Amino acid sequence: MEFELRILGSGSATPVPNRHHTAQVLTVGNMLYLLDCGEGTQRRLLEHKISPHRLKVIFISHLHGDHFFGLFGLLGTMHLQGRTEPLHLFGPAGLDEVLTTQFRHSGTELGFELEYTLVDPTQHLLVYEDRNVTVHTMPMHHRIPCCGYLFREQPRRRSLVRELLPAGLTPTQLHQLAQGEDVVDEATGAMLVRHADVAGPPKHARSYAFCSDTVFTPSMAEMVHKVDILYHEATFLEELRERAAVTLHSTARQAGELARLADVGQLLIGHFSSRYRDLEPLLREARTEFSNTQLALEGTIVSVPTTAILA
Amino acid sequence: MEFELRILGSGSATPVPNRHHTAQVLTVGNMLYLLDCGEGTQRRLLEHKISPHRLKVIFISHLHGDHFFGLFGLLGTMHLQGRTEPLHLFGPAGLDEVLTTQFRHSGTELGFELEYTLVDPTQHLLVYEDRNVTVHTMPMHHRIPCCGYLFREQPRRRSLVRELLPAGLTPTQLHQLAQGEDVVDEATGAMLVRHADVAGPPKHARSYAFCSDTVFTPSMAEMVHKVDILYHEATFLEELRERAAVTLHSTARQAGELARLADVGQLLIGHFSSRYRDLEPLLREARTEFSNTQLALEGTIVSVPTTAILA
Repeated sequence: MEFELRILGSGSATPVPNRHHTAQVLTVGNMLYLLDCGEGTQRRLLEHKISPHRLKVIFISHLHGDHFFGLFGLLGTMHLQGRTEPLHLFGPAGLDEVLTTQFRHSGTELGFELEYTLVDPTQHLLVYEDRNVTVHTMPMHHRIPCCGYLFREQPRRRSLVRELLPAGLTPTQLHQLAQGEDVVDEATGAMLVRHADVAGPPKHARSYAFCSDTVFTPSMAEMVHKVDILYHEATFLEELRERAAVTLHSTARQAGELARLADVGQLLIGHFSSRYRDLEPLLREARTEFSNTQLALEGTIVSVPTTAILA
Repeated sequence: MEFELRILGSGSATPVPNRHHTAQVLTVGNMLYLLDCGEGTQRRLLEHKISPHRLKVIFISHLHGDHFFGLFGLLGTMHLQGRTEPLHLFGPAGLDEVLTTQFRHSGTELGFELEYTLVDPTQHLLVYEDRNVTVHTMPMHHRIPCCGYLFREQPRRRSLVRELLPAGLTPTQLHQLAQGEDVVDEATGAMLVRHADVAGPPKHARSYAFCSDTVFTPSMAEMVHKVDILYHEATFLEELRERAAVTLHSTARQAGELARLADVGQLLIGHFSSRYRDLEPLLREARTEFSNTQLALEGTIVSVPTTAILA
């Protein structure tokens, strides 16, 4: 099963050539999750050949424009394209009022159900679950209520170990075991083969943590402990640490420090201030703390293979 | 004095590669006017190297998203870039509530004054005037209240005709005449030279009419009679005339017909349905009614020279 993060944009508020506002698509198996939706996201989806119809769930971190101004246009396009399938939208309080006001004045009655779940950005709680993932909110610390999201893959079926399988199993019994079921004698109900006895070790449940926007908060390391991919904002270089503190943003070095404290698999940094045209200094700075760091450049794709092992 | 229209985008609601949502910049002398502000307009301005600071006045036609969803981001960027100069915003009722709701939830307090003028899209009225232009509203006929805008250049100073000037004028007196003033005897107050007697004919006041979105309304020809440039929406080909009527849009042929009825200088058509990847059929169709027609493609620049004569 695929577990892939795709960066559509990771600029900050002021537009810069060749960078776009925050938006990401996480793909887990057959499900696509949109994380934030800055202005122009529907155009990014078009460029990446991702049909908006494939999106079932959207998670918005906070109501600063560079993180959600693309939502109106995207929802409008879904409507115009004849969507009927419900869409589930997660975001902080106010999102529903902003959207409702828009729709009222534009005379829009969506042809599909828009289900809001207003998240509480002060809590670390399970807010969403499907066959592929669970999603927990994570409190960020920013100028307005802001919510991170932690995705964890649902437990995957353990593989059967050929050497442990008893001889003489029928194809039906083998199939049952492969599906994770025990095999019992149909007549007597007696246990014949326990799945647990012939299955390999539990598979690593892959995980992704989206942390944007936030001031550096070392205690956050506990929530994102050992995630496979951590995206953490890195608006400034360390030389503007004061400015980061005042505006409740982080420096690249701080992002690296959090990755190190949390012992994550890899770090992606983004939400770069428009003052930085050359992003290499940000990358170098984060790497002084955590070497397995990448820039979340537009078009970056990071995936975690199924063979990733439990660290 | 420059009189130039620049097309930033002229797609309709559904995004298409290489086309953008409606936005135009009209330049008259030292003033820039933004007409509509679809999603991504701030990025278009960046691409066209037009600083948002140069915009003093923005006119919004209606509250369908493809005509104003870029406004939030543009205003936010103006704020972040430290704008202090007031901005004057014209648009139909609801625009202020939509913006105010956004600003409240994003914790935005603009660092500049945003002056709203709510226009009445049922009236043909003077709503704005500066040294360079007058702007009248024009009723459009669309699914929600929608307002066209008619720009007329202010009367330009008439040139002096050398052959008509009496001999013996002092430099000061010549300067007065050149400024459009009469020359009087300072001691007695007696009229010496009337400006009207030595000036050439009145200069043509250049004009631009922005008509989007609207169903074909022949009576509109009177309002836009003999304008130098007419932009008229042409969402569909004539073969979808019925659909145009139902959705309150126009066909390319109807746009051409209006241009012919109004005897305009030139016609620009835009707001093309996303179903048309090849726009030449729309152009050909409009030209069957009015030959001096152009597609309002992204990047198109049309200007009216000062030597344009009163037809």
